[in-house]
Formats: sequence, C-alpha cells, structure tokens
Amino acid sequence: MASINANYLELQGSYLFSEIARRVAKYKEEHPEADIIRMGIGDVTRPIAPAVIEAMHKAVDEMGAASSFRGYGPEQGYDFLLEAIRVGDYKARGVDIDTNEIFVSDGAKCDVGNIQELFDVKAKVAVTDPVYPVYVDTNVMAGRAGRFDSALSRYSNIVYLPCNAENGFVPELPNGGVDMIYLCFPNNPTGTTLTKAQLEPWVDYARQAGAVILFDSAYEAYITQRDVPHSIYEIDGAKEVAIEMRSFSKTAGFTGLRCAYTVVPKALAAKLDGKSVSLNELWNRRHTTKFNGVSYVTQRAAEAVYSKEGKAQIRETIDYYMDNARLLTSGLQKLGYEVFGGVNAPYIWLKTPNGMGSWAFFDELLNERQVVGTPGAGFGVSGEGYLRLTAFSTRENTQRALERIRNV
Amino acid sequence: MASINANYLELQGSYLFSEIARRVAKYKEEHPEADIIRMGIGDVTRPIAPAVIEAMHKAVDEMGAASSFRGYGPEQGYDFLLEAIRVGDYKARGVDIDTNEIFVSDGAKCDVGNIQELFDVKAKVAVTDPVYPVYVDTNVMAGRAGRFDSALSRYSNIVYLPCNAENGFVPELPNGGVDMIYLCFPNNPTGTTLTKAQLEPWVDYARQAGAVILFDSAYEAYITQRDVPHSIYEIDGAKEVAIEMRSFSKTAGFTGLRCAYTVVPKALAAKLDGKSVSLNELWNRRHTTKFNGVSYVTQRAAEAVYSKEGKAQIRETIDYYMDNARLLTSGLQKLGYEVFGGVNAPYIWLKTPNGMGSWAFFDELLNERQVVGTPGAGFGVSGEGYLRLTAFSTRENTQRALERIRNV
Repeated sequence: MASINANYLELQGSYLFSEIARRVAKYKEEHPEADIIRMGIGDVTRPIAPAVIEAMHKAVDEMGAASSFRGYGPEQGYDFLLEAIRVGDYKARGVDIDTNEIFVSDGAKCDVGNIQELFDVKAKVAVTDPVYPVYVDTNVMAGRAGRFDSALSRYSNIVYLPCNAENGFVPELPNGGVDMIYLCFPNNPTGTTLTKAQLEPWVDYARQAGAVILFDSAYEAYITQRDVPHSIYEIDGAKEVAIEMRSFSKTAGFTGLRCAYTVVPKALAAKLDGKSVSLNELWNRRHTTKFNGVSYVTQRAAEAVYSKEGKAQIRETIDYYMDNARLLTSGLQKLGYEVFGGVNAPYIWLKTPNGMGSWAFFDELLNERQVVGTPGAGFGVSGEGYLRLTAFSTRENTQRALERIRNV
Repeated sequence: MASINANYLELQGSYLFSEIARRVAKYKEEHPEADIIRMGIGDVTRPIAPAVIEAMHKAVDEMGAASSFRGYGPEQGYDFLLEAIRVGDYKARGVDIDTNEIFVSDGAKCDVGNIQELFDVKAKVAVTDPVYPVYVDTNVMAGRAGRFDSALSRYSNIVYLPCNAENGFVPELPNGGVDMIYLCFPNNPTGTTLTKAQLEPWVDYARQAGAVILFDSAYEAYITQRDVPHSIYEIDGAKEVAIEMRSFSKTAGFTGLRCAYTVVPKALAAKLDGKSVSLNELWNRRHTTKFNGVSYVTQRAAEAVYSKEGKAQIRETIDYYMDNARLLTSGLQKLGYEVFGGVNAPYIWLKTPNGMGSWAFFDELLNERQVVGTPGAGFGVSGEGYLRLTAFSTRENTQRALERIRNV
C-alpha cells in the first residue's frame, strides 16, 4: 500500500481559522438570533475600486471575442503587469528591480507556502513568534520542523524569535546557524513594524550568516510613518539575501480575486556542494512547472491598481480602514486596554485584561459581546495573552464592537 | 550559506515547450516575414462562451458593490460550483461523489504537480511513456525519481510504461512494487484512450497492489465513443484507489481564466506504519494551508459552463475542434501518414515519415512548411518517431497547415 508523507502527521490540530470558525458556528447554533461582529479573519469588506471593475469588464469582453481572446499567458505574468509593478512599487521608491525578477501568482499564501521547496530539507528555519501559521506549517509538511514538543508548544528544529511588549516587538537576531528567516513587516498578527534602522541589522546578519530572508510585505500599503521601509530592497545589499512577497489582497481588496507576486533578485544565490546556485532560476523552474499563470482578467484588474484613478480610489479605502484602526486604538486605550499596532498596519494587538488567556478572552468576547477576534496564542507561544482585532470591518461595525466592549 | 534542494539539479534541460518556443523564435528572427502556423502547445483559440462571459460580467459587478462584495471564499471552492460539478460531471453519469470530495483549484497543472506531496518521498512512481512532463518533473523535484541516465534518457527510480503503435497505445500493467500510477486518458500527448474494459484491470491492479492511481481526465469532454469512460469512478471500486483531476481549460477554453478541480474520495486511504490514513483529509490540509481559493469571478464562470446555454455553446466549440481533428486525420492519412488519436481527444499523434527522428521532423516542418508541432520525443523515449499536432487551431489554419504538408 502506498505510504503517506509522514511529516503531515506532525501538524498540530486544525488550522487556527478553522478552529475559530468552529467555535463561532457552535455559538451561532446555540444562539441563532445572535448578531455577531466578525473582526477575526483578516478579510477586507470594502468593494473593489471602480477603476479595477472597469478594467475587469473590458478584459472579460476581450475573452469573449475571437480577435482578442487570450489562452495560456506567461506563467510569470504578463509584461503589462510586471512593468506596472516594477515602476509603481519599486522604481517609485528608488529601487531597481527587473521585470524578470518578478513572478506574479494567485496569492501570497501560495508563494510563502511554496518558496521553501527551493531549500534543502535540512535547512534551519527561523520565524518570529507570534507568526502567520503558514510559514511554520509548510515547513512541517516538508520535514524541516522536527518533532512537536507539546509542553513547549514548539517544534524542535524551528528557531523562534519572540516579539512582545517587553522587547517592543523587535525580535532579537538569531544566535546563528539559521538558513531561512521568515520576516513579515508590517507584521501579521501584531500590527507592529520595523523602521529602516531596525531592519538593516537583519540584512547585515543574513549577509554574514549566508541566510536567506523571506520577507512578507503584504501590508506595506498601510504604512504611514516615513522611517518605515515599504520594501526590504530599500536597504543596501538586501538583493543578495532577500526574497520579497507582496499581495494585492490587502492593498486593493483582492482576497476574492487572487493576485500576488514574489520578487527573487538575480543577485540572490544559495549553495550546493560549495557552488553558488541562482534562486531566481530555481524559482522560475518551480513556477513554470507547477503553476500556469494568473487569470488574464485578474491581471488586468491588478494593472488597474496602478492607474491614476485606481491609486486614488485604493488610497481612499486604505484610509477608511486606517481610520477604523485609529478609532479602535484610541477607544480601547480610553477603556484602559494596552494596545499595539494599528499605526502602520490594519491590525490591533490587544493585551488581554488581568492576565487572561487568549482563548479565554476570545470566548468571553464571543459569548458576552458577540465580537470575534483572533486569539494571539493561535499564532504562537509569545502571542499568549494577546488578541488580534482587524480594522477591516465597516465603520459601523467597528463602532458597534467598541461600544459593546465598553459596556462590560 | 543556505543550501538548495539538490533534487532540482536532477531536472533535465528546459521544459519542452520552452525549447519549442526558443526554436520558433530563432526561426522567426531569421525569417521575420514567415507566416507560422502554431499547432504545438495545446492551447485553445476559440473565445469564451457567451453564457460564461455574461456570468463573469455579473460577478464583476457584484465585486464592485459593498452589498455583494466577496472576500476570501472557501479554499475548496464555493458550494454553487461544487454542486454544479457533483451533478453535472458525476451524478449525470451515475457516479455518486460528495461535494466535500471535490477541491476546486486554479489549474490541473498545479493539482497534478502538488498531489505527490501527500506521498512518502520513497514512494515508487509509474508513468506511461510518452507522458506529460509535469508528472515526472514534480517527482524529480521531490526526490522520488532517482538519477537521470542520459544513455537511456530515463530516471532510475521511475517505472516507465511504453505506449506505442505496437501495443495499440495500451500500457502493460507494472510488474509490481509501484505506489503511485499516473494515468491520463484521453491521453496527452497521443490522443488515444482506454475503453472501460481496458481501464478496469488498472483499478483491479491498484486494489491488489495497494497503489494509488492519479487519473488525469482533462480531455474527457472530447470523448465521442460510448465504451470510453469519462471518469475513472465509472469503474467499480475505483473510489478506493483513485484520485481524479479535471480542468475547465480544454472543456470550456479556460486556459487564460484558470479553473480546475480534483476529486479525492473519502474511501481512499494510504498507509503510515501499517495504519490507514485518509487522503481526503490530507489533501484538505494541504489545500487549506498552501492555497487560498479560486477567484470568485472565475468560479461563477465555471458554474455557467453547466448551465443549459453554457453546455450547448461549449459543445459547439468542442465539435468545432473535433471537426479539425477529423480533417487532420483524414487529410494526413490520404497523404500516406500513419495517424493515431483524434477520435476521443483533440490531439493527433503522427508517425514521422521514413523513421525520421521527432526533432528532425519538427525542424523540417518548421523550416520548410512553417508549421509548428510538438516533437514526440519531448514526452519521453517512447515518443521518439512521433509528432503531436493539436486540433485547437482555427479551421482556416488547420486547412492551411494540411495544404502546406500536402505540397511537399
């Protein structure tokens, strides 16, 4: 009988958001009349911008006529989109990236999940803690995580870098011996970020240690402060050590449309038997072998995000969410809560009151206030005692949620 | 320095279609005036059906209004599409499949590439020869293929099952000891297929040997003969041994829209340390961890494929392509060529004249006739001496290509 990939059995329980969905469904079943406000999953609520909608209608019509129909596109993405990304996201910030260093995909979750395939199964992985579960789970599946220690709630071969109020959410550099470092800034789930001066030592470290930084900047559009880098490539030497992953999901509300991209610079290498191997070539081989490009309609939608009208409309939506973030932050602070994030990211990282556990506080908010957050402990040991709220709700629900928490 | 996944270095040369593109580009550069007819890559040319276009416009409008906007959908696909697939593709043929056995994805290439992750790295893989390169390459990347033997043009750990004119393109059952068997019927590249009576022994074999069949039925919509099964689940007991992969690419011209699905029956198990493990659960974990669902707009498009209008319009397009196939088959036969396929599939598998090599015949067709095919040898050793032509061109180009070959 065929044997399975035994690494899968090292995965712990169900995926965080499935567990939340289960508890919410149970509550809903027991209280069918309940009016639940969902601030758990980091999903957007505002509609797609008019300029993007217009571009999609046009692309749909093109697909319906023989003269303009498009079949398979380049797996890496159409030139029109690669060029828009190169100019809009990089050249505009003084960063030179070639279009053949950009790989368009159907989601950052896919890219951050797949990128580990390029590395040796013995490569040592470092993650910040708390952390987006996909970084860890995909390395568990690949066999890099070792055994799960239930007492510690940690995998034996993963290096965890705590981020908490005590260190101002700035992780310490690893002690050494790591090969792959996952960084996400602005951070999911804490909503905090690093300034350029705080990110620079990571690039230096990776250069010295020969490590590769897997930099997830899915939330860069939410940055408001000037000393916070939008791209890791704003830091000298980063092209030699970093892969950057971006998404249109949070930038332009594409969670239901699916478009993202990954930058793998040509200057970036890893080794095999002492020889240097281009990760750009390796990723290109992976991308063209296991992927067949993003929908033409979606790529035209993404292109429109960079148009003058698109940019203005998207900025309006981001401002709307960030107004929610400010509302939540100040409202919760007035109520005496300790609150982090929310300045350069759409996430509020709330310290639970009276040293309460994350899941206990989650249950209390759900059962007593009908507000759904995400328990910090679900993102890792260092998330215990925190809860994540998102600013992606409507204004009305954000205010109502705050009102309900106030009336404790 | 981080080490790479050394398995990637066992990959042979560039992907077949990149090499074809390179030769065509070279010829085009040397003969800028050349009017090249492309019958190489299996890409469709007819526009998307009006019913599908209409559904997409509607879905785009929904995404543009706050009241109907959709963010993240279920990773497995929306119920409306799962139900359309369950009824339209299975119940209609007397096969009971549950919607939670269906996983919608953005492409069959992705699914057939990713499915191997569920199995042990030591699992023994069998493929037919010639074969769609993705089956082999993704197992090379995972480390299951062993070393490449240049003299034999084969990997040491892969079991190859020749399909050629001598055995009527019906592969022999493996001698034993295989765990994963990739089958594609109707077949890409040969265009031939198996009758129900010819497929049954494979299900029996897998049941006895404890092997899992990975059944790629991307071309089932092109079946014209009654004794040819559209789904492997039409065969008793197949649910216990087979995963089936389907695509909207060839059925409804979605190569540029990206939608496919994979069926993993709950009755299907593999083992770990003697214990039985559900592959449905394992694939669900993989799908929800590394994938984030297909575009809502695309899923509405796929749903429309099953509407009354959609079905009729799509049937018209398939008939159009199959008329091309008949035209090619009879035309080439009249010219004395030995021709296979083209009856239940949009591919014509042509024996090269006078024992000519595949690539030599490819070059001759390109250089002398400006017609691009796909060299059979690119699909494996047993493809040597054959060339694949597709019926996906326009009627006009199909006739012109035939005319050019005639005037040798």
